[in-house]
Amino acid sequence: MTHLKYLFISGALLLVHAGSYAQQDVVDTATFNRIRKAELSSSQIPQIAHYLTDVSGARLTNSPGYSRAASWAVATMKKWGLANAATERWGTFGKSWEVQDFSMMMRAPYNAQIRAYPTPWSPSSKGQLQGGVVVITPTQSMDTTYLSNHATEYKGKFVLVTGTAADHKKNFEPSAERLTDTALANLKDTYMVPKGIINMYNDRMKVFKTADMILKNAGALAFISAGRNNVNGTVFVQGYYGYKLTDPETIPQLSIALEDAQKIKRLLQSGQKVELAMSFTGKSSSEDTNGYNVVGEIPGTDPKLKSQLVMLGGHLDSWQAATGATDNAAGCIVMLEAVRLLDSLGLKPKRTIRIALWSGEEQGLLGSFGYVKNHFRDAVKFTVKPEQAKVSAYFNLDNGTGKIRGIYAQSNEKMKPIFEQWLKPFNDLGATAVTLANTGSTDHLSFDWAGIPGFQFVQDPIDYETRTHHSNMDDYDHLMIDDLKQAAIIVASFVYQASIRPEMLPRKPLENETFVFDGF
Amino acid sequence: MTHLKYLFISGALLLVHAGSYAQQDVVDTATFNRIRKAELSSSQIPQIAHYLTDVSGARLTNSPGYSRAASWAVATMKKWGLANAATERWGTFGKSWEVQDFSMMMRAPYNAQIRAYPTPWSPSSKGQLQGGVVVITPTQSMDTTYLSNHATEYKGKFVLVTGTAADHKKNFEPSAERLTDTALANLKDTYMVPKGIINMYNDRMKVFKTADMILKNAGALAFISAGRNNVNGTVFVQGYYGYKLTDPETIPQLSIALEDAQKIKRLLQSGQKVELAMSFTGKSSSEDTNGYNVVGEIPGTDPKLKSQLVMLGGHLDSWQAATGATDNAAGCIVMLEAVRLLDSLGLKPKRTIRIALWSGEEQGLLGSFGYVKNHFRDAVKFTVKPEQAKVSAYFNLDNGTGKIRGIYAQSNEKMKPIFEQWLKPFNDLGATAVTLANTGSTDHLSFDWAGIPGFQFVQDPIDYETRTHHSNMDDYDHLMIDDLKQAAIIVASFVYQASIRPEMLPRKPLENETFVFDGF
Repeated sequence: MTHLKYLFISGALLLVHAGSYAQQDVVDTATFNRIRKAELSSSQIPQIAHYLTDVSGARLTNSPGYSRAASWAVATMKKWGLANAATERWGTFGKSWEVQDFSMMMRAPYNAQIRAYPTPWSPSSKGQLQGGVVVITPTQSMDTTYLSNHATEYKGKFVLVTGTAADHKKNFEPSAERLTDTALANLKDTYMVPKGIINMYNDRMKVFKTADMILKNAGALAFISAGRNNVNGTVFVQGYYGYKLTDPETIPQLSIALEDAQKIKRLLQSGQKVELAMSFTGKSSSEDTNGYNVVGEIPGTDPKLKSQLVMLGGHLDSWQAATGATDNAAGCIVMLEAVRLLDSLGLKPKRTIRIALWSGEEQGLLGSFGYVKNHFRDAVKFTVKPEQAKVSAYFNLDNGTGKIRGIYAQSNEKMKPIFEQWLKPFNDLGATAVTLANTGSTDHLSFDWAGIPGFQFVQDPIDYETRTHHSNMDDYDHLMIDDLKQAAIIVASFVYQASIRPEMLPRKPLENETFVFDGF
Repeated sequence: MTHLKYLFISGALLLVHAGSYAQQDVVDTATFNRIRKAELSSSQIPQIAHYLTDVSGARLTNSPGYSRAASWAVATMKKWGLANAATERWGTFGKSWEVQDFSMMMRAPYNAQIRAYPTPWSPSSKGQLQGGVVVITPTQSMDTTYLSNHATEYKGKFVLVTGTAADHKKNFEPSAERLTDTALANLKDTYMVPKGIINMYNDRMKVFKTADMILKNAGALAFISAGRNNVNGTVFVQGYYGYKLTDPETIPQLSIALEDAQKIKRLLQSGQKVELAMSFTGKSSSEDTNGYNVVGEIPGTDPKLKSQLVMLGGHLDSWQAATGATDNAAGCIVMLEAVRLLDSLGLKPKRTIRIALWSGEEQGLLGSFGYVKNHFRDAVKFTVKPEQAKVSAYFNLDNGTGKIRGIYAQSNEKMKPIFEQWLKPFNDLGATAVTLANTGSTDHLSFDWAGIPGFQFVQDPIDYETRTHHSNMDDYDHLMIDDLKQAAIIVASFVYQASIRPEMLPRKPLENETFVFDGF
């Protein structure tokens, strides 16, 4: 507690200190312009995007795809001349898993293809599974009493969870959008996940596990989740558990398009015999259960400041049904391009700039929180480590492919005028909003928890929420390359500005609260 | 020629005749209201839609799916009490074909699912095909000299045709829309395919066949077409030839999503080794090469008029990657519901009402044109048959799931005031436009060619052109049931009104022109 009290005071002093500088931040617009020109004339974003998505493939944490991307990022940073480029263990994740073969057909009342994807960490089917279908509602799928009472019906059957069918309202609205001036002027807290929701989620996971065991013990063939309404065949595919060595093995699990699910449901309702056939071969391994982030540095050049850090990052892991282009190759592409720009321009940052590409984000910010625990703060005792005092800020990008429209100051009042000064040279690129509002659900929260200023930029939503986030549409062609270039320009400039600023960035008081995402 | 001259004069006389009645058409609004109330209170559209799409499956002409739908339609019309419900041969189509099993994976540089569908009439792969990929442009795919010069490169390879990648402009616009008042007030000729385009299409088919043979002789594994840009993974799948007994057997052919095609293209461009694996089992049969339409009747009750006909229809055949819900189960659903309504209300049409559900429409209006040739007019001599003089009109619906907003009077000037009177009671349902403009590309053209007034309604486009038409999205859930109800109300009313009208509807002069779609 002494330690914490000291930090609290130290943080408060820093706030005052920074405040006095805030009005006179000297923004290095000449360098900002150099960065902008370099990015617009010789961007490497298409190439970086290609290697992180097309060449690496899906990047589920600890999967071969993740390893391909991490190895490429390390090798590429070394090639560029960055220092200390390496993977860095953050803790224990669990199994590696990847899809090797998958096919699915409806077999009765006639043969038809099904738009389907195996759920991450699903066990293999060990050959082709074929059988009838039982449809249950989402509510029934969460009601273990209901499932137990109907267990005998599931033997030899596919169990399909699907709700009500689509209406077409959303098709009369664009799937992609940009933030309006009004929206930018009224940014509110977003993507925040309060502890209560996390607890509810954890409770649900327990129900999922119980439900899965009921189905397994009943002899069901596989568990099928239907896609979301109103998304024109898009399939959203994410897993919940199965990667930990201690997780029980379920029956095979998969997701199918809503259209296929509803067709099956209606066929059964009208008395037709429906049979499905599904074959899935996955590859799972427990050889190395460690989780690894990717790090690299541009060393600082000021003798007094080079031991201090400005960090930037995004999560490199993705879900599995596509190549995770907007979630979140996009953020990694921008961050890699930002350090490449800074390095290739021969700029001399005073503080050391460290990029970190996280893993395990999709399972609860595991990689960034592991890193923060290893470097900055103990998650149990809440004690901080010496390195915590040396990080000026962490900048994150993880809200899709949309360009930067501003930044969430994350309730850090002293930062607002500073960011406003920094952002002014980019107003013409559409980046204008500095909001005190908070945003959540991504890796800057780990830094925020450790008392290090952690920021996520405000980004145009494009079709992140409607189509690409966690879906089979999240491929390279859903990236907007010009938007990513704009983001790289701003991120590189912000990081550089933070690196040359005489003082570290002002901090908020440190709070002794358990990290909201800890405990999945 | 005498015969034709007679008809021409007869047609002209009818025009004058009808003109004198046009101002005093007595619209039976009481019956229109009964029809409307019945449809809104006890519609069978969801059930009819379910059987034609979900239960029948894809309805490629002559396929088992088409037969299921045709048999159900005949049996259902009989159950409703319609007369003469039967399938009726229209001529020779060719082979039946259906998908029995299909799977496709990328195998290198890593395993990943591909969104793919076999092309109709593609031969089976006879086991799993695995190999590398050669990418060619759409222009190269049509350049037989280019293909011949590069033939040695295709041995043991998948040949993929794909153009330039997506941009995101279309995602900022809705995929679905309704016609605005301005659009309704300015309807122009639409979907018209002039003879020159048909000739160009036929020339292209010859090039396709030559190109296919070059690839086959070169030992290529399969021919892959990439999907359209900007459609979020939607795959458009249609065939060009292969159903005629005389058609040469190609190598296996398939369509994949643009995102997958572009990924493969970029991987090859950056020097990665790409391998695909594809397995397709289809079932093809030449047992019965006849093409069949479906017909049924509500007999007329007026002794003098019951030998005359009012016809309505739509095409029952579809493409293969989905269940052809909007193209064109929608039209058949509405037409079946219209005759069900008329029959179930015990209305007494004076003329006989005949419904016809066509096959072979997707291969060039084959079913309706075959029917018209059998019943109404010789396609070579241009002579008309006696039955031609007995058909008052043919009403068609085939522009997707959108509700009726008006009707194309198809250059028949005398019809404009008549339709305006008929449509007035439905102005409150959004159906207001009577245009002299023509619309094409569907089965009313066959009747128009035979000198019988043939009409297609103006429909809201919804997402027909952007998503569902010939795509893997064309499933039941992309129907808008309320729109189909509105259409059934209007069609039933129009058909009834035509059946009780003292005179047949006025005709345009008959022209001695070859049917535009004849000769595929």
